[in-house]
Amino acid sequence: MKAITLIDDTNPRSLELTEVDTPQLQDGEVLVRVTAAGVNRGDIVQAEGKYPPPKGESEIIGLECAGVIEDPGTTGHEKGEEVGCLLAGGGYAEYVAVPEGQLTPKPANLTLEETAGVVEAACTVWSNLGMLAGIQEGDNVLIHGGAGGIGSFAIQLCKALGCTVAVTAGSQEKLDYCKGLGADVLINYKEQDFDEELKAWADVILDVVGGPYLEQNIKTLNTDGRLVVIAVQGGPKGTLSLGRMMPRRLSVHATTLRARPRPMKAEIVASTVKNVWPLIESGQIKPNITATFPLADAAKAHDHMDSGDNTGKILLIA
Amino acid sequence: MKAITLIDDTNPRSLELTEVDTPQLQDGEVLVRVTAAGVNRGDIVQAEGKYPPPKGESEIIGLECAGVIEDPGTTGHEKGEEVGCLLAGGGYAEYVAVPEGQLTPKPANLTLEETAGVVEAACTVWSNLGMLAGIQEGDNVLIHGGAGGIGSFAIQLCKALGCTVAVTAGSQEKLDYCKGLGADVLINYKEQDFDEELKAWADVILDVVGGPYLEQNIKTLNTDGRLVVIAVQGGPKGTLSLGRMMPRRLSVHATTLRARPRPMKAEIVASTVKNVWPLIESGQIKPNITATFPLADAAKAHDHMDSGDNTGKILLIA
Repeated sequence: MKAITLIDDTNPRSLELTEVDTPQLQDGEVLVRVTAAGVNRGDIVQAEGKYPPPKGESEIIGLECAGVIEDPGTTGHEKGEEVGCLLAGGGYAEYVAVPEGQLTPKPANLTLEETAGVVEAACTVWSNLGMLAGIQEGDNVLIHGGAGGIGSFAIQLCKALGCTVAVTAGSQEKLDYCKGLGADVLINYKEQDFDEELKAWADVILDVVGGPYLEQNIKTLNTDGRLVVIAVQGGPKGTLSLGRMMPRRLSVHATTLRARPRPMKAEIVASTVKNVWPLIESGQIKPNITATFPLADAAKAHDHMDSGDNTGKILLIA
Repeated sequence: MKAITLIDDTNPRSLELTEVDTPQLQDGEVLVRVTAAGVNRGDIVQAEGKYPPPKGESEIIGLECAGVIEDPGTTGHEKGEEVGCLLAGGGYAEYVAVPEGQLTPKPANLTLEETAGVVEAACTVWSNLGMLAGIQEGDNVLIHGGAGGIGSFAIQLCKALGCTVAVTAGSQEKLDYCKGLGADVLINYKEQDFDEELKAWADVILDVVGGPYLEQNIKTLNTDGRLVVIAVQGGPKGTLSLGRMMPRRLSVHATTLRARPRPMKAEIVASTVKNVWPLIESGQIKPNITATFPLADAAKAHDHMDSGDNTGKILLIA
C-alpha cells in the first residue's frame, strides 16, 4: 500500500507518499481502507521527532481517519462497514489496522470525510470535559485556542450541554469564527489579559498552552474549578501557586489520549459515541472542515496548520 | 465564659484565658460545653495573624473539640449529649456554638478527650483521601509528615483500607512512631530523596509541604496518580511540569477544610462518621494523644507543636 513516510529525519516536512507493507492484523483488529485522515498538532510534532508512537503501534503518522472495513479479522464487524477510527498512529495511509474498540459508527448525517474530522476531537474533548472534568449545564468554561480543531469542537459541545463559553484566540477573524460556533465571551490574547477579564470566573478551563498560562489559569478559576491541560504548546513548565488553590479547592489535570492503553481508549470511544454522537446527529455539533489536501500533500497540510491562519479542521483525502 | 484571647496582635504566644461573652446560638446551632480541644497547625498560624477565620465565624482560636451539649437550640439534639465538633473557630473556650451538621457522635470506645483529638484529622484525611482522591485497597499512598496529627491518622486510615503506605519524617524516632502505626516504607527526608526512593510509585500523595516538594511529588506519582496538598508549610509556590504530568495523566488538588461552606462541611462530617467512625470503634484507627495541657497553657501547647519534636496529637483540657 501507499503511506506517508518521513524521508529525512532532520526535515519534518520531508513527507512523501511511498510504497510500504500493508499492516498485518492482530487479534481484535480490523483493516480499514482509509477515505480521509484528520490532521492534528501531534502529527506535526511527531514529524519533528518529538512525539514517537507508543510501543507496538504503527510508526506511520496519523491519529484519526474514517473509511471502509476491508477485512474484519476476528471481530464481528462486516466488510464494507463505514467507520470512524481513533488511532495511535497509521492514519496517513491507504490502509490502517484498528483495534475494534477504537472504531466508531459514521454519524448518519455526516460524510466519511467529515467523520474523519471529528473522531479525535470528539474523543479528546469528551474524555477531558465530560468524563474527567464533568461539565454540567450552567458551568462557565474557558477554552484556549478556541478556533482550532479541538477548540471549535469544544465550543460546540459545551454550548450543546448548556454551558457559558469563553474563548481565547489571536485574531478578530478567529474570534468571529468562535462566535459563529456559539462562544459567549471572546478574548484576543494579543490585546487582553484573560485572567483580568475572567477573574475567578471559570468552573473548567481546557488549555493547550501549558506552562506560560498556568498562573493566569489558576487566577481565572472559580471555587472548585478544574484546569485540564491537553497540550503544552507554550512550554511544559510553569509556576503553580498552591496557596492560591487551597481556599478555592482547585485542581490541575494533565492528560494525553494517545498514550492510554487500548482498553481505556475503548472506554473513551464508547462513552464518546454514547454521549456525543447524538449531538452530532442532531446537528448541535458540526464538523468544521476548513481545508482539505490530497494525502500526497501532507507536508502542505502541515504547513497550513503551522501557519497559524487555520480555523477548524484540516483533512487529508486518501 | 472564659476563652483563650490573643492579647497582643504582634505576639503570637500572648494567649491568655480571659472573660468573654458566651456565644449566642444561631438557628441550627447547639451550645457545647467544651471538655477538650485539639491543637492544630492552623491555630498557630491564626495566632500569627495569617489565617483569619471565615466571615461570620468565631474569632476565638480552635478548629475542633469535644464536649457535652449544654443547649440544643432549635435542633433535635438533647442536653447532656456527648459530641465531637468540627469547628471553623472557637474551640479554645469553655463554650462553643456548633452548627448541627458539624457534630459527630462520640465513638463508643473513646473518651471525650480522645474524641477531641480525632475530629479534625478524621474529617481532613477522609475528605481528601477518601472523598477526593478515592483511595482503594491495594493503592500505594505517600504521606508527608507522617508523624504529625494528620499524618498519624492518615497512616492508620490507609492501612485499615488495605493500602501500602510510605511516609516521610525528619528523625528516626518519628519514623519508628510511623512504623508502629503501620507505615510500610519509612523515608528520612533529611537523608534521602523521596522521589529517588519512590520513583513513579504513588497512586496518591497527601502533602503538607507544598511548593518545595511539587516537582519531586510529580516524579513520585504513578500513572493516574493524584497529589493532594492540604498545607504549604514549605511555601505556597512551586514549579509544575505539565509535560511530565500529561503522559501519566496526573492531577494536583489543593484544599482546605475550614474555608468550606457549612453545607459542604456537613456532608464531609456525615461521610466521615459513616466511613471512619466504624474503623475507630473497631480499634483499627486509634487516637494518638501524645501531650495534654490545661486550656490556660495554650501558648505552651503551641510551643510544643512548633518545637518539631511532637508526634501525634496535642490536646487542651478545658
